Order: sequence, then C-alpha cells, then structure tokens
Amino acid sequence: MLNLQQTIGDHFVKLTTRQWQAQSPGEANRIQVVREQEDVINHTVCQVISLLWTEAAADQRLHESLHSLNSREVWKKSPSPRQPDHHVLSNRGVDISDFYQSHFQDYDAYQQDKYHEEKNPLGFLNLGVSENKLCVDLITERLCQNDMNCIEEDLLPYSDWREHPLLREEVARFLTYYCRTPTHLDPENVIVLNGCCSIFSALLMVLRDPGETFLVPTPFYGGFTFVSHLYAKVELFPVHLESEITEENSEPFQLTVDKLEKALLEARQKEKKVRGLVLTNPQNPLGVVYSQESLMEYLEFAKRHNLHSIKFHSVLSIERLPDPDRTHVIWGTSKDFGISGFCFGALYTHNKEVASAVSIFGYLHGISGITQYKLRRLLQDREWIDTVYLPANHSRLRTAHKYVTKKLRALKIPFVNHGCGLYVWVNLQSYLKLCTFEEERALHRRFLDNKLMLSRGKSYMCKEPGWFRYALFPAGYTLNLETP
Amino acid sequence: MLNLQQTIGDHFVKLTTRQWQAQSPGEANRIQVVREQEDVINHTVCQVISLLWTEAAADQRLHESLHSLNSREVWKKSPSPRQPDHHVLSNRGVDISDFYQSHFQDYDAYQQDKYHEEKNPLGFLNLGVSENKLCVDLITERLCQNDMNCIEEDLLPYSDWREHPLLREEVARFLTYYCRTPTHLDPENVIVLNGCCSIFSALLMVLRDPGETFLVPTPFYGGFTFVSHLYAKVELFPVHLESEITEENSEPFQLTVDKLEKALLEARQKEKKVRGLVLTNPQNPLGVVYSQESLMEYLEFAKRHNLHSIKFHSVLSIERLPDPDRTHVIWGTSKDFGISGFCFGALYTHNKEVASAVSIFGYLHGISGITQYKLRRLLQDREWIDTVYLPANHSRLRTAHKYVTKKLRALKIPFVNHGCGLYVWVNLQSYLKLCTFEEERALHRRFLDNKLMLSRGKSYMCKEPGWFRYALFPAGYTLNLETP
Repeated sequence: MLNLQQTIGDHFVKLTTRQWQAQSPGEANRIQVVREQEDVINHTVCQVISLLWTEAAADQRLHESLHSLNSREVWKKSPSPRQPDHHVLSNRGVDISDFYQSHFQDYDAYQQDKYHEEKNPLGFLNLGVSENKLCVDLITERLCQNDMNCIEEDLLPYSDWREHPLLREEVARFLTYYCRTPTHLDPENVIVLNGCCSIFSALLMVLRDPGETFLVPTPFYGGFTFVSHLYAKVELFPVHLESEITEENSEPFQLTVDKLEKALLEARQKEKKVRGLVLTNPQNPLGVVYSQESLMEYLEFAKRHNLHSIKFHSVLSIERLPDPDRTHVIWGTSKDFGISGFCFGALYTHNKEVASAVSIFGYLHGISGITQYKLRRLLQDREWIDTVYLPANHSRLRTAHKYVTKKLRALKIPFVNHGCGLYVWVNLQSYLKLCTFEEERALHRRFLDNKLMLSRGKSYMCKEPGWFRYALFPAGYTLNLETP
Repeated sequence: MLNLQQTIGDHFVKLTTRQWQAQSPGEANRIQVVREQEDVINHTVCQVISLLWTEAAADQRLHESLHSLNSREVWKKSPSPRQPDHHVLSNRGVDISDFYQSHFQDYDAYQQDKYHEEKNPLGFLNLGVSENKLCVDLITERLCQNDMNCIEEDLLPYSDWREHPLLREEVARFLTYYCRTPTHLDPENVIVLNGCCSIFSALLMVLRDPGETFLVPTPFYGGFTFVSHLYAKVELFPVHLESEITEENSEPFQLTVDKLEKALLEARQKEKKVRGLVLTNPQNPLGVVYSQESLMEYLEFAKRHNLHSIKFHSVLSIERLPDPDRTHVIWGTSKDFGISGFCFGALYTHNKEVASAVSIFGYLHGISGITQYKLRRLLQDREWIDTVYLPANHSRLRTAHKYVTKKLRALKIPFVNHGCGLYVWVNLQSYLKLCTFEEERALHRRFLDNKLMLSRGKSYMCKEPGWFRYALFPAGYTLNLETP
C-alpha cells in the first residue's frame, strides 16, 4: 500500500515541478503537461479501484487485522482527538465540540496529515471536498493583474456591515445578466456575508425559532446540519429520495411534489413545526439541475403550505415567483469560480424585512474590504468571464467529467449521470459485504486508512448505504485539463 | 447651521483635492498640506463647541421646536426605520431587528447620509467611530507594494478554517516580539477569526451557557452587548466606575479589586451566575492602560472566584499568569494598524480545549485567503513596522491628542487625560440642563440633528450621564498630521 502511495506521490512531484517550470509554456510543452496530468488522474482512479478490489477479495480475518493495523498507523501520527474538558467548557461548548468531532474528525486528520509533494508524500489524498480546481491558472492570472492590487481609501476602515453598496450593486448586475432575470435585480435586495453557510445560518436565525423544522431532500450537503446546529438550532427534516427507478421515480433520487407532501405529513405526524423547504440547485451531491417546471412545482408546494423556500443557486430567472416574499436565494462564487477561499456568499430576497434582518449579521460575518474589492473587479470583468473564463471552465469540466465517468463505466461502477458537475455520486454497494451503514462506514474507514478521503452517503443523510461522492480532482492540487 | 456645515464641507473639498494633487509632494508642499489639515481640525472642533454653546444658550421652547424641526429634516431624507414584520420573521428575528434598531439606528442614518465632499457635502460628520486614520497613507503605500498582490495556490480553495497555520505562526511571532512575552508564544494556542467581536462571541459561546454572567467594568464598548445578545445570550453585569476623585478613587473611573468584589457580591445577591470577567486594555472608551500590578490584581481576583478572564489586548508579557487555563487574550489589527476593514481578530489562550472549541467557529467566521496573506506580509515586515510605521504612528497620535486636548482645555471642557489614544472621553455635563440620561440623549440628538455623530456614555453603560467619546478624527476622512 505504501508503495502505491509513493508512486502517486512521485507522479505529483514530477507534475508539480513541471508545472512550475512551465509557467508560460509553449503549445507543445502544454500538451505534454496535459498528457502527464491525464496519466496522474488515470493512476489515481486505478489506485482507488485496486484498493477496493484488494480489500474486497481479502480474507475477512486478514482484512480485519490489516484494518486495525492500518488504523493504528494512521492515527498515531495525528494527535488523538481531543476530549472536551467538561470543567472549562460550557454545556453548549462541549456539545459543539462533540458535534464537530463526530462530523469533521476525518477532515481534521486530513488537515494534520495532508499530502504534500515534498513535505508529506504519504499524506491524505482528498477526493472528499468538492472544489473546481480546473481553472485555477486562469483565475490566478486574472487576480494577479495590476487592477486587483489597488487599495482604495474606503477599503481599510470599518465598512458598513449592513451595506457593502458597491459589491451589492455588482452582484445584482452580475446575477441579472448571467441568470437572465426577467427584470433588473435590485441591489437593495442583495445581502453579502462571508460565505453561503453564513447566509444560510443567518436566514435560519431570522426566519425560524429553535426547534422549528425545514424540509430538506436527501442526500444533501452535510454542512447544513452543522450550521443549523451551531447557532440556529432549527431542525432539518429529511425528504428521503431513492435510487431505484420505479413508477413514481423516473430517474434516480428524483424529487417530486408527492414525496414533499408525504414528508410534510410525516413530519407533522411527529409533531414537527414545519416552516420551510431547503433546495440546492444544482443539487449537491447529486449534480441534478432542476428544470424550471420542477422548480415551479416545488415553489407552489411551499406556497400552498406557507413554507419559506431557501434556494441555493437560482430561481431568479422565473418570471413570476409563486411566493416571492418567502423565497430566498443564496449564491456564492465557490462553485462557479472555484474560489471558496474568498469566503463570499450572497442572498437575494424580495422580502425587505428578511434582507434587513439578515444584513445585521454582517456584524459578525463580515468580508474584508480588499476581498470585496477583488470580487467586484472579478464580477464586473464581463469580457474576461465571457471570452476567457467561461469557455475554458465549461470545456474543462466536460472533459474531466467525461474522463472520470468513462473510467467508472469501464469498471462497472454505477453512478448518477448528469453529464457535468464537479463530482460524481457513485454507488459502491457491490463492495459492501452487507448493505448497511456499518459496512459503508467500514469501507469509508478503509479508504481513510489508506489515506484517501471520499465523502460517504451517510454524511449526506442518504437513505441507502453505499453511495459516495467522488470529487473529480483531489483537493489541494492544481491540475489542468485541456480539451483534446 | 447649514452655512457652518457648508464651510466644513468646503474645507474638506479643498483638502482632499490638494491631497490627491500632492500624492508625492515635496517637503514644502507637505508642510503646507499639514498646516491646512490643522486648520480643518481646528475648524471642526470649533464647530462642535459653538453648536454646544448656541444650543445651551437658546430658549427652551425655541430649542425644542428647532429640535423637532431638525429631526424631521434629518429623518425624512433617510427611509423610516423598518418595523419588523411579525408574520415573516421568527421571534428571535424580530428581537434581533429590534435590538439592532435601538442600538444602531443612528449609525444607519449616518450610513445612508454620509458626508462626501462632492456627493453629499451636508451629510453626517462622524466622530463616533474610533479609527486610527493617521497613518492611512503609510498603510496604503505598503499594501500597494508588489509583494502584496501575489496569489499563492492555496489562497483560492477552502482554507482549513480551524488552522490557518501560516497566519497563526505569524501572529504568534508578532505578539511574542511586540508584547515582549517571557517565552515564545505557541502558534497552536492562536486562533484567528474574522474580527475581535467574532472571537469574543465564540468565546462566550464555548465558555458559558445562556443566562450566565460576565462582569464588565463600565464604561465599556457597546458592541459587546450586541454581540452577546446576538448568539451567546450571556449576560454582561456592570462593575460601575465613577468619575469623582475620592479616598478609594485616586483617578477618575479607576478599577479596583474592591469594586470588583462588590459587583460580584451584588450580582450573586441578584442570583446571577457569575462566570467571568471582561477587561479591555487599553480601556475603550477611557483610554486607560492598566499597569502590570493592576492587571495581576484583577487576574488574582478572577482566579480566587474561578472566573474566566477575557482580556482585550495583552496580558501576554506577564511572567506567571495566576490562572492561565482561564485567561483568554483577544488581539486585532483595527486599533494598532487602523485596518478595521480587514476583519481580523486573534485569540491567544493556553487552554487547548478552549482554542479547539473556538476554532470550530471558523466555519462561519472565516477570513478570506487573500486577506490572510496580506496580513501575514504586513505582520512579518518588521523593518517597515519598526522604522516607518511605528515611529510615524506614535508621533502623529501624540500630536493629534495634544492638539485636541489643548482645545478642550481652552474651552474648559473636562476630559479623562491619558496622554494618548484614539479618542478622548469628555465630560459635557455642564451642557445638560439636568444631569440625567434623558438630557444626555437630548444633547446627543442635537448633535445628530446637526449631522454630527459622537458616542454617548449611555451606550457604554456609563453610570453618570453627560460623558461622550470623541474620536480624534472624523471617520471616513483621510487626514495626515506630521510632527511639527
């Protein structure tokens, strides 16, 4: 196993070295770099698959002893998980610590033992975090241009945490243009905070009281659970979707109004106070992009039951929202521009009360002035976005997706196919001895023991064991893929 | 009144124009600019004083009718304060909105009607927010240098919200050096979030449960109340200090252990669960810098009663902390570098459990990678800090403070004198008809009606009516003062 790790490590060393050497490469050089990158990806996928087969084929007892051996080896390197001191921390401090440990322990282990070409060639390889690293070269180049380094007078002192007027205007213009909204979006309805999760948290705070409930179709992004637990204490009630194609399920994990109605009924029977519906679009981890018709049906459902709708990404192009005062749209640059590190999220809501109340949270969730400035410059450079960034991003995403899914098909690993996206939702049930979450967890642990991070279905509240989200590229690496 | 405003406005127009023209001025030109800036400050102070006298001398009835007239004039320009819609917002949403409106309404009015030399020469002049604008020229120059615009590979994706290793290391080195700590500070004990208030909020969250209490000497920074109300719901119990010199009070607003003990007793009699003590050092708004002996006494007091101590600024130079596991130090760059807009705050605590629990809050209180990078560069440039920034900052602060306090003395306005600082704590009791908070509020309103923002004592929970914090320079202007 260590040898395999070493091989992957060596590949990356070579690749990275070459990338640095070839900062302004000629065309021939560029093609060469791309080929080698393909090799590395190829290799990585093969490692994952071969690990699976090795483990699956191994004798149960041998497997278990290996497993515990590997576990010890991995964990002894990182400090043992901290047990909160009940004498120092408050009850909620202990609760937050425990909750965090149970959800993010692996992530911490990864952070403490990250793969690095020179310093830590045997560290964790991260396919668990979804980030669009495909255009990091273009983004970096753009951000290094001279116009980005201007320090305007008003960037240094306290900004008005409720206003950010210039950035809000730019976001309104940007979304108006790229979401093809029927009318110009009003900057007064835009609120910006330091990330989509901060927006989500602030929305839950001002829309609902502790103990009230939002419906969320599963599988869904696990961070929502953490966020609602940290401050808002609003409960997320799952609308369970299933992979099987049936009469009512024309595609895997299909969301229908019927399922929403059933979940609502079930929640009410359990005496939950259901007050809202959370939807991500494109769906994470499925990658589904809902049609306008479907979105309208979900929105009509929400209106019928007086529910707030929190939408990630856009319903902004819809001509007539069924319940504009209860429809709140969250958008960020993490997925579209691959700049999660900018810590930026925006809310668009027609409801002035909600906008005003959420904006108050800028007091504790503010974005630095210089980051605001760079975001503004980036969003307003339409020429660069339209002629440089978007074409390259689309084509690279397609190529990457095609490449990985072709490999998965060749290996007969089922997956949900949506033609594009930053990740693939793969079905590894055939590698489970029993189709249980214990087995899913054991498989996940085996990946981790071999320093490979994937996100497992349980953390997305998926109803069926055995699903994993496979990010197209390991986080922490800069890989470029050109169209052939 | 409008004429006076116009005059001030004109001065600033002239000044700002000249500043732009003189971006790299010769020495003679520079002296000329500085002289004119002194004129402007002179003028501003005189306006404030003359307003006071005009109003104080006016007939009560006339005053009141003028007052209501002015009020209408001011408020009709800005939208009427929003009344939260009880049907859309949750109970806590309404509560947060109400609390915000009652504490920050004036700030919002200012934001909607800010003075601007061209666009709004009759807007609000802000002496209510304390920001060190004296070295904005030097900071801007430094931040515009080429090394600041580097975009490293790891700045764009998700940073590890718990770690920020490079920035933490730099903060540890910086504080070790400038606080002259007895041993090197451990980067593992440093946590960074997007601002000191975020750190304060996270600390309250993990140290105490809702309804528990921290002691805070008054007057204290009003933001603490808002922060603890927003998320933590920890109560702040005032330790009231008095201005009068008496046997037990050798200087105005002196904090003694005796007063701490009395407040603790009083709180316990009221069945408060007192769990901690909050101290700012240098004290805001008093400007007091506590001596090491005093700090030790306060810390011993806290230890005696098993209280956590949250310290703003440093007790880091103390050789042996009485209760290191319960002593938590907050530091930021807002006051020292005048870059509040960077949204940066750091915690130093020996207590690993507390550090670990607070770091979790990075999930919702993160700093963007590019801001982290610039902060690191800034903090590590010791040569620039020692030879350029600090000497200029100290000398300009001294000059500014001397200038304003000289004017105050000439006008016989009492103030707490600490020789330096970003603000002066002035006693305007002689301008109140009665020494009540109603009168203080009326005086404050009169300032506002004339588009002048000052912070009044009540918002610092000061026990005695009539005190105001006067920031040395209007927020939103770039003024330079050179040593003569």
